[in-house]
Amino acid sequence: MSKEEVKLHGFWRSPYSRRVELALKIKGVEYEYIEEDLINKSPELLKYNPIHKKVLVFIHNENVIIESQVILEYIDETWKQNPIMSQDPYERAMARFWANFVDQKCLPSLRKALWGPETEQEKATEEAKENLKILEKELQGNNTFGGERIGFVDIVANVIAYWVSVYEEAVEKKILTEEFPALCNWRNEYVNNSIIKETLPPREKSIAHARAKYGTSKASS
Amino acid sequence: MSKEEVKLHGFWRSPYSRRVELALKIKGVEYEYIEEDLINKSPELLKYNPIHKKVLVFIHNENVIIESQVILEYIDETWKQNPIMSQDPYERAMARFWANFVDQKCLPSLRKALWGPETEQEKATEEAKENLKILEKELQGNNTFGGERIGFVDIVANVIAYWVSVYEEAVEKKILTEEFPALCNWRNEYVNNSIIKETLPPREKSIAHARAKYGTSKASS
Repeated sequence: MSKEEVKLHGFWRSPYSRRVELALKIKGVEYEYIEEDLINKSPELLKYNPIHKKVLVFIHNENVIIESQVILEYIDETWKQNPIMSQDPYERAMARFWANFVDQKCLPSLRKALWGPETEQEKATEEAKENLKILEKELQGNNTFGGERIGFVDIVANVIAYWVSVYEEAVEKKILTEEFPALCNWRNEYVNNSIIKETLPPREKSIAHARAKYGTSKASS
Repeated sequence: MSKEEVKLHGFWRSPYSRRVELALKIKGVEYEYIEEDLINKSPELLKYNPIHKKVLVFIHNENVIIESQVILEYIDETWKQNPIMSQDPYERAMARFWANFVDQKCLPSLRKALWGPETEQEKATEEAKENLKILEKELQGNNTFGGERIGFVDIVANVIAYWVSVYEEAVEKKILTEEFPALCNWRNEYVNNSIIKETLPPREKSIAHARAKYGTSKASS
């Protein structure tokens, strides 16, 4: 069999790109990574993603896929080793539900709470904490959302594990505090996991970027 | 084997409830339907859906699932007859992509175009038509998004097949016109399909509701 083509167009500080890289590393699938320039997107990227024109594009031989959750499910269904999703239909449904909860509820509220318009931050912070409480409850008793190992929800929740604390430091505001012991423990394990570490950008570089973009004048001085 | 419990809590004019009913009918799965009152939601509903408190709840024995797309995948993975998704990972990925495109791009723009704030309607109409053009192109050459038979994307796109024309009539504005011949043909086949028909509310009742809620004074007089 000729060598498979597996390519990922991504961007260094995109959590969505990092999700796909992590799934490929868990599976042990070799791939070529193409770092995209957000201003001058490659012709290949625009050809493959004409609808959304976003930087995340995954290519496997003839197959072109966009959207991180869709790509993760494709990877899990294509390379069966080290599954990131259970084979049980109900566990699969729950994983999809929680991944949507992270993307559609947690992330918008966390974004607004950390760098939204000042007038909206208080309300968004309350909302973000309500959402984190729900996640905290879901996690109780387990080290990961996947139960014993890193699974679909953990991969999607990379923003909560890594980027939230980067932005907290940049804007000098804490949201994911010790009020959430299970989530804090999960986050510590996550960012120190040897495979996951490889997929995360250097913390200082991320903070410097976040500070330049969203930091207070005090923080960025 | 004792009889399975399959229950659906829904609401008559919710397209999301109708999606789940259609999937169950395609599979030939018997179920109990519980019509919810939006104002006085049943204690059972609030117990099963404490996070979103929305009316759509699907129950299969011990398993409680919410969110229509998640429920559809569960149904397809649990009852294998008459599949609504292919077994091919790439076709599955494409079905998920297009279903998300319908829910996340088409529906918000169509809603705004048909009954959004007046100042935003022109821009939203342009956007809605751009999205319909993309769907039109995707459909070319096929009677359904599923290829030969009604599949996942067709089920999710029920809002475009049925509700758009209901609201068009109520607010006296056309968006899905003959500019989109493939979509018009698909819509006609859809609303006249004998199984699908059973899952759609009576057109006159839907129009009367839409007119009372969003119709122009002329239309509702």
